[in-house]
Amino acid sequence: MKQILGFSKLNKNEKIAWLTQNYFQDSEKATQLLQQYWNPNEKLQKLHDEFTENNISNYYLPFGIAPNFRINGEIYAIPMAIEESSVIAAASNAAKFWADKGGFKAEVIDTRKVGQVHFLFTERFSELEKFFHKTKTTLLERLQPLTKNMEKRGGGILSLELRDKTSALANYYQIHVEFETLDAMGANFINSCLEEIAQGLEQEAATYFNFTETHQPLEVIMSILSNYVPNCLAKAEVSCPVKDLFPNAAEAKHFAHKFVEAVNIAKVEPYRAVTHNKGIMNGIDALVLATGNDFRAVEAGIHAYAARNGQYSSLTSAKVENDQFTFSIEVPLALGTVGGLTNLHPLVKLAMEMLGNPSAKELMKVVAVAGLAQNFAAIKSLVTTGIQEGHMKMHLMNILNQFKATPSEKETIKAHFKEHTVSHSAVVEALEQLRNV
Amino acid sequence: MKQILGFSKLNKNEKIAWLTQNYFQDSEKATQLLQQYWNPNEKLQKLHDEFTENNISNYYLPFGIAPNFRINGEIYAIPMAIEESSVIAAASNAAKFWADKGGFKAEVIDTRKVGQVHFLFTERFSELEKFFHKTKTTLLERLQPLTKNMEKRGGGILSLELRDKTSALANYYQIHVEFETLDAMGANFINSCLEEIAQGLEQEAATYFNFTETHQPLEVIMSILSNYVPNCLAKAEVSCPVKDLFPNAAEAKHFAHKFVEAVNIAKVEPYRAVTHNKGIMNGIDALVLATGNDFRAVEAGIHAYAARNGQYSSLTSAKVENDQFTFSIEVPLALGTVGGLTNLHPLVKLAMEMLGNPSAKELMKVVAVAGLAQNFAAIKSLVTTGIQEGHMKMHLMNILNQFKATPSEKETIKAHFKEHTVSHSAVVEALEQLRNV
Repeated sequence: MKQILGFSKLNKNEKIAWLTQNYFQDSEKATQLLQQYWNPNEKLQKLHDEFTENNISNYYLPFGIAPNFRINGEIYAIPMAIEESSVIAAASNAAKFWADKGGFKAEVIDTRKVGQVHFLFTERFSELEKFFHKTKTTLLERLQPLTKNMEKRGGGILSLELRDKTSALANYYQIHVEFETLDAMGANFINSCLEEIAQGLEQEAATYFNFTETHQPLEVIMSILSNYVPNCLAKAEVSCPVKDLFPNAAEAKHFAHKFVEAVNIAKVEPYRAVTHNKGIMNGIDALVLATGNDFRAVEAGIHAYAARNGQYSSLTSAKVENDQFTFSIEVPLALGTVGGLTNLHPLVKLAMEMLGNPSAKELMKVVAVAGLAQNFAAIKSLVTTGIQEGHMKMHLMNILNQFKATPSEKETIKAHFKEHTVSHSAVVEALEQLRNV
Repeated sequence: MKQILGFSKLNKNEKIAWLTQNYFQDSEKATQLLQQYWNPNEKLQKLHDEFTENNISNYYLPFGIAPNFRINGEIYAIPMAIEESSVIAAASNAAKFWADKGGFKAEVIDTRKVGQVHFLFTERFSELEKFFHKTKTTLLERLQPLTKNMEKRGGGILSLELRDKTSALANYYQIHVEFETLDAMGANFINSCLEEIAQGLEQEAATYFNFTETHQPLEVIMSILSNYVPNCLAKAEVSCPVKDLFPNAAEAKHFAHKFVEAVNIAKVEPYRAVTHNKGIMNGIDALVLATGNDFRAVEAGIHAYAARNGQYSSLTSAKVENDQFTFSIEVPLALGTVGGLTNLHPLVKLAMEMLGNPSAKELMKVVAVAGLAQNFAAIKSLVTTGIQEGHMKMHLMNILNQFKATPSEKETIKAHFKEHTVSHSAVVEALEQLRNV
């Protein structure tokens, strides 16, 4: 049977047995493959099994290192979890390029996070305003048990305001709340606070507006944090005299010109901006994943930020002023260095130690730098050799593995392509030729 | 030394030795941890090491299953690689909810992909138009060696046009190209074609416009595919009579009302839309990762699509018409089922077999469904119990592991929270109480 009742209640072996018997031609082979990815250390495997539901194996992402990042004067080796070949090489190249040109400067602009209680109200706004004015203190008091620990550490609720959204949707209002969650990403904290506010709002409204079976002018639809965090913002920058960009002065000037035009194109053309920013996210997500943060949250917040002015646009800016080249990025980043997976996943703990056990603010800076570095490397390739040369060189091993090249075949082919352009068909041809000798 | 020259040329053990000696207090412990994640099967590990650069270990993402997805009448078990607890449970719940209400209907609307050659031209547009008109055939002919295989299979270049973008940026023009890449994601194919077009463009222009040292009116800045693919689009939908949503008719009606309002709020309020779509991406990315596709590409394309009308908005729509509830999603998806990691990563191959070795178009449908299912589960929670109840229940094990609960402690605490609300502090308190007995 391809359908099943109570799947989540089966143990891991039972789940695999059902799955492989119903969805695979060779159920034994599929079972072995899934088990081959289990960690031989049972305790460690159990820890990973408990991260989520219906877990049957471990999905490997390459865990690699991009060294030599000079950020605000200190040197970092950046951990990256990413499957795309060439991303780590590109990051490493950019790090090396800038290490002796002053390195990366990074700063956190602000750390405010947002959550909202969304509700409908069917009477006059002035009545709602009066009610909110009267109830606000009660709502904040109700939050005390939830916020007291966060407040002790210097965080908590920064503001709580009523917003009239009826011009967008009939009867729609919000309680818009801003939070400071320090080193926590804060999703659970924010959502718990919002649900408490929502409960308080409904209870207070029931009394204030004399709710009856047929008269309930206020109705909460939902309460939830926002992953749009335009005020939780980090900035990173590199800068040097144009002449330092390349040994040859004319080449340096030409490079700077093309680089700036490439970024300007990504500012004005959405089709280009999306790919431009996608490259930035290659660097950002690799580090976000390695540090146990939620890349979907970061992706959503950043892309929405890229569209904030009505047209989807580049997250980075480049300019030449007084013969000085400057390239910078500004990205919203809601990250945590405590809570979630950060204290649980052994490789995440290792990644954190590699970064010097950063605070959330420090991590925001390094992540912004990873994005800027990736974008620098991509544009540098695009405006000089083209993206394919470097990318295909990195992809060469994947093609060879696809055609099950032997170690000695790999050596021969790798040597050949040191002097030839890599393309899928060229590799296949070279391999065929080699095999027909 | 925290800086290093020639890191990429070291072998894996040398890389780890340098890293752990320079970035860790206890270098032996760090080395052991990294090695503990290596696969005992050396050949398999080597395969994974070759996916990317500077690889030193395997980053585990939970690999789980959401069964019971009825899509266009067939039953799927969907493979998901995702670290966030509650995502797989939510997907499974949504699948089960809709399996006996007709299931999911999904279709592919179009599969056109896009790439562009971006260039500057400093003379009159009419001159450029004449040149392009004369050169277009030559450009297409140059592509023949690259496109012939793709054409044999029914794909290739669909259109190639000159676009004047000077109203956005001085002297900026594009060759805008549309592609059909069949079952390949197509990045390498598209980029290779574009670089060939760019080279042809420059060569032809050099003759046509009589380039000299000081007179070069046409300059290519870069050539690259776009991850913005609004015409590579899939749609998924669920629908049933309102009364079938819940056993109790009044409850069903109230649920439908709140659900539709929640989606409408995400249509008009960007702060909500970002989180709404983030939840959709939980489902989409988990499947995109499991099938070896590039989630950064998919994320960028989808979020930009969500902002296409000038304000970031919901990807899903909900309505009640004639007592029929309908909930649907439309998302751009450039996916591959051949090439890249799909033929290399053993778990990706397994995931593909689990899905019946789909074509790219079939995979697009399943991915759109995964997004819709995730969104349904999230909104269902939000408008009924609130998001925290389900989420924290799933997160309970993570909190227990964080505090190193023993198996017997876990059993006791899990039993306790079957009847109490899970919060971080409540779990900690319960654990402390238990330990002080």
